[in-house]
Amino acid sequence: MDFPFSRIAGGVGAPKGFLTSAVSCGIKNPDSKRLDLALIYSEKPCSSAGVFTTNRVKAAPVRVSQAHLRKGDLRAIIANSGNANACTGVEGIRHANAMCDAVAKPLKLKRSEIGVASTGVIGLPMPMLRFEPKYDDLIDQLGPKNGSSVAAAIITSDTHAKEIAISFDLGEHRVRLGGCVKGAGMISPSMATMLCFITTDANVPSDSLRKAVLECVEESFNRITIDGDMSTNDTVIVLANGASGMPSIRRNGARCKEFRQALRWLMLELAKAVVRDGERVTKFVTVKVKGARTYLDAKKVAEAVCKSALVKSSWNGGDPNWGRIIHAVGYSRARIREELVDIYIGGKAACLGGLQADTPMDELRQIVANPEFEIVIDLNQGDADYVMYSSDLSPEYVDFNRSEYAYWKQARKDGLV
Amino acid sequence: MDFPFSRIAGGVGAPKGFLTSAVSCGIKNPDSKRLDLALIYSEKPCSSAGVFTTNRVKAAPVRVSQAHLRKGDLRAIIANSGNANACTGVEGIRHANAMCDAVAKPLKLKRSEIGVASTGVIGLPMPMLRFEPKYDDLIDQLGPKNGSSVAAAIITSDTHAKEIAISFDLGEHRVRLGGCVKGAGMISPSMATMLCFITTDANVPSDSLRKAVLECVEESFNRITIDGDMSTNDTVIVLANGASGMPSIRRNGARCKEFRQALRWLMLELAKAVVRDGERVTKFVTVKVKGARTYLDAKKVAEAVCKSALVKSSWNGGDPNWGRIIHAVGYSRARIREELVDIYIGGKAACLGGLQADTPMDELRQIVANPEFEIVIDLNQGDADYVMYSSDLSPEYVDFNRSEYAYWKQARKDGLV
Repeated sequence: MDFPFSRIAGGVGAPKGFLTSAVSCGIKNPDSKRLDLALIYSEKPCSSAGVFTTNRVKAAPVRVSQAHLRKGDLRAIIANSGNANACTGVEGIRHANAMCDAVAKPLKLKRSEIGVASTGVIGLPMPMLRFEPKYDDLIDQLGPKNGSSVAAAIITSDTHAKEIAISFDLGEHRVRLGGCVKGAGMISPSMATMLCFITTDANVPSDSLRKAVLECVEESFNRITIDGDMSTNDTVIVLANGASGMPSIRRNGARCKEFRQALRWLMLELAKAVVRDGERVTKFVTVKVKGARTYLDAKKVAEAVCKSALVKSSWNGGDPNWGRIIHAVGYSRARIREELVDIYIGGKAACLGGLQADTPMDELRQIVANPEFEIVIDLNQGDADYVMYSSDLSPEYVDFNRSEYAYWKQARKDGLV
Repeated sequence: MDFPFSRIAGGVGAPKGFLTSAVSCGIKNPDSKRLDLALIYSEKPCSSAGVFTTNRVKAAPVRVSQAHLRKGDLRAIIANSGNANACTGVEGIRHANAMCDAVAKPLKLKRSEIGVASTGVIGLPMPMLRFEPKYDDLIDQLGPKNGSSVAAAIITSDTHAKEIAISFDLGEHRVRLGGCVKGAGMISPSMATMLCFITTDANVPSDSLRKAVLECVEESFNRITIDGDMSTNDTVIVLANGASGMPSIRRNGARCKEFRQALRWLMLELAKAVVRDGERVTKFVTVKVKGARTYLDAKKVAEAVCKSALVKSSWNGGDPNWGRIIHAVGYSRARIREELVDIYIGGKAACLGGLQADTPMDELRQIVANPEFEIVIDLNQGDADYVMYSSDLSPEYVDFNRSEYAYWKQARKDGLV
């Protein structure tokens, strides 16, 4: 992080010209008063760009938002938690469109200027009757100070809302960048059940924004894993409305690079926040692979280690088990040579040349007892490296995910299934 | 299973001309009296074939056995539990060779006629001083009735020993086939911390045996997964000594096919026994993928579903969660179309055309409440299919694997680290 910035309050509502709101519809549970429907709206036209799940099973809102983003002129995003609107067929598409229409009309926008996102249980029809009485409130409550309520409305099994906003200089102009994210389960490289919305009042043309978003997602959200499962609903959408008053950024110019640096930093902070707040997670582990023959080899090693159930279980137990790490390195399909592999835990050698190093086990145990630590795997075969951010796997994670039956019972009570 | 056979007692000791024994060395824990060193010996020369882990980190005994198997004339196997002799470098190779030498001399065999296998903790030196006083007993106790003690000596976190033996006709001769296996953790396609030894008194030439072993492993051990981790020590070795008195099987002849059918059945039974006895496993789930465009697509889908932490957690909870299954189908990288996917649980439709089917949830829950059930995923895109055998993931699995620190403490007490 080597650019000057200030943290500011307000999340996605912090950049100029953005109004936000959130209401409670009782989508998952009609008796609940928690916020579950949110709206982000730019008073001015925007550039926009998005990245979505690579899962071949795509939720209806993902399909609809992808279509709407083609022109890169989104001006609003409507998002709900409590139901993913995934595996819901043609009816699901109709419901996602209906969500867009409900806000397009009062905001005097075209349907194609609205992005839509949903997160929650898969395969249940959306309880649209619960949305309809709340659309008026959603519009009426739009204001410049509600960014945090958007962050609160999109979370599911997250333990807390996650948002960041910063201000920094682009040339002679001060601009603002704000984001919120939800994560918790189904988190894996290539995106996850993750919704992330980012707003900025910088003036970034569509093509530059698209390029920046792709590049920054690759180095942030695609570097995290909690449970290795990749969801049907992953969505990152960025809106840039230029309301700071700055002139348009020149493609590949200095301002463009500075903006990208800020965006990358913000996305990485949000991505790390997702791992730290993963379902029943107790450890945040940075895994750095270096000395690989190629970038792809480094990536394969990092992914194998970060996804191994045995490695993650040992982290949960505070066990600096380098044997399990090297066994995952071995099955990663990367070109490695066992006798060259060094493994460092918190800077201390645990394994040198494929063999146990001299560091006393208790020193390594003290490091792994911390809630955050770093593992460096040096393959000593080349110059390529890769970094990933992972969590442990806890008995509580499995217990937490044993059943979603309660959702189905509610859906039956509602006459939806 | 469409060939006539009888189950017989005796495991790997059941075929004629094989002598076995097992002793207790206290390899993992000097105070324990459990069997942990085993020997299988054929009184006559044998054909032999083996399949080993594809992990690039290979334990010393794997490297040594692979070299010894090149000629296909193994006549004995020495195996221990309690220490994997993996990530132990040149010293590990010396120790694996020493184990071979210890039995080669009294049995009047060459070192290269001995296979060696180890299973247990990774990265600790073998406590060879505990082996040495026991080699004499190991040789002295060789007998035709000790097959079950071999099965008992190789288990680690398994809850019970696993062995099968059968007799069947090959032409006019009755032959015997016996096997034992250990599994429990680090179980995944492409072999695992799995040791499997099979003996037969059928007369099978080396090249036919090698072909049969490769083919049968592909359709048995490579079809199972417990935790998705692939070990450094996986070993399947088959010895055929012809002691039944039958003439040599003709390559690709009818007898050869019949033998292969029996071998495949035996390996599949042993493989399934490994899943059923997986670490803290409560469910045995058969996942059949059909209607795929290619065999590889079917395999990718089966592997993604069988390895998904979320799918496996839902099985643990008795939750017939087809939404999580289809999301794993979607990220498998197979060519699938969401709107064509059907999912059946225990023969009942859970999802048709990518949407929820009409089967009442409670009927599906009753099926998933059973300790064993079958899931069929029909992609409706072609004719290729694939079947895998998987388990659930339990909170107890994670808890069980949180720490191997006790092993290290013992190793330090022993002055090994």
